[in-house]
Amino acid sequence: MPADSAPSARTQVRRLPQRGAYDRATLDAILDAAFICHVGFVADGHPVVIPTGYGRRGDHLYIHGSAASHMLHSLQAGIELCLTVTLLDGLVLARSVFHHSVNYRSVVVFGRATVVEEASAKLRALEAITDHILAGRWAAARPPSPRELKATLVLELPLAEASAKIRTGPPSDEPEDYALPVWAGVVPAALTFGEPLADPKLTPGIAMPAHVRGRS
Amino acid sequence: MPADSAPSARTQVRRLPQRGAYDRATLDAILDAAFICHVGFVADGHPVVIPTGYGRRGDHLYIHGSAASHMLHSLQAGIELCLTVTLLDGLVLARSVFHHSVNYRSVVVFGRATVVEEASAKLRALEAITDHILAGRWAAARPPSPRELKATLVLELPLAEASAKIRTGPPSDEPEDYALPVWAGVVPAALTFGEPLADPKLTPGIAMPAHVRGRS
Repeated sequence: MPADSAPSARTQVRRLPQRGAYDRATLDAILDAAFICHVGFVADGHPVVIPTGYGRRGDHLYIHGSAASHMLHSLQAGIELCLTVTLLDGLVLARSVFHHSVNYRSVVVFGRATVVEEASAKLRALEAITDHILAGRWAAARPPSPRELKATLVLELPLAEASAKIRTGPPSDEPEDYALPVWAGVVPAALTFGEPLADPKLTPGIAMPAHVRGRS
Repeated sequence: MPADSAPSARTQVRRLPQRGAYDRATLDAILDAAFICHVGFVADGHPVVIPTGYGRRGDHLYIHGSAASHMLHSLQAGIELCLTVTLLDGLVLARSVFHHSVNYRSVVVFGRATVVEEASAKLRALEAITDHILAGRWAAARPPSPRELKATLVLELPLAEASAKIRTGPPSDEPEDYALPVWAGVVPAALTFGEPLADPKLTPGIAMPAHVRGRS
């Protein structure tokens, strides 16, 4: 059973605190449902935000490749990151412009990321990242060669200082605005997946496996 | 015709430079297609990344409300931001774990955001943000009252130092891996919208307007 994080000064949701959550079950559900995170770090005093894939394994998040390579120069002692995941669930159309909003689930994780050096730990982290793109994919694809493993930078971020923020439900208008002749409601939104497209270079006769079919 | 940005030291796409683009038509198309941005800033030396809505008006982006309120304490002289937008277009399943990827379109904008103080400029910015959620919504909803306008913090970020990064198409495997008996291809992904749900408190008889129906 994972430990819940208590809100820290920077994870405490101050604006609309009723939307904040800190329990690990809520955090994990959002982290496991999203595909892309946005990782922020400070480079030469300036903020940088890069989108990238990620994986979760127990109490740690892992990122690799592109995002990590941007941060290489300052990695020796680890690097302070803010990793944010957002799922857009709907457009919230209120009667007043002021109360327009979106329904969403987001997680913000603060912490110091460190490089995963040891080969077997690195493989387990890459498995988490790969199976987060598509469950079952790690077992189906060719594993990393020693050269590829060496060329891949993997960062580990503890899931210790984190908070979730969630908005659901219909718009919330000013009491006097409910009488206005304005349509109000929610347009649901979701990331959806289409029919998989085989690589034009796919060897004839290789059937689409169940772990791919199941996604669309 | 908007001016294209020349790549700066920090917008120059260094890793896989063939994926980089700097022309305004490409940047604008991505910015106009996405709904949510992730805004990064530095607070007490630490990176912070917050998801929020945004709008574009010519050569400027606008954000307001929640994200902006997190930054209030350091706003007097403007604040250095990195605003990133990402559209996930597909899961790229290669024959090797190493070449797994995603298809995406992203834009990264660096710059100093300043507070929009003047009331009519603020209204135009809020119109851009509101109509970015749903085109036609500004004209349909009750405009901000003077009190609401005063309570809303709006930030303006010039679209001057920006780059796009795009990946499309099938996986790119090592030449010797094409012979492996591994299914490879792309699972298309897109944010999609469902049938609008009327607010349970909607006054009976108000029909769903065309600008809402058109979204689903």
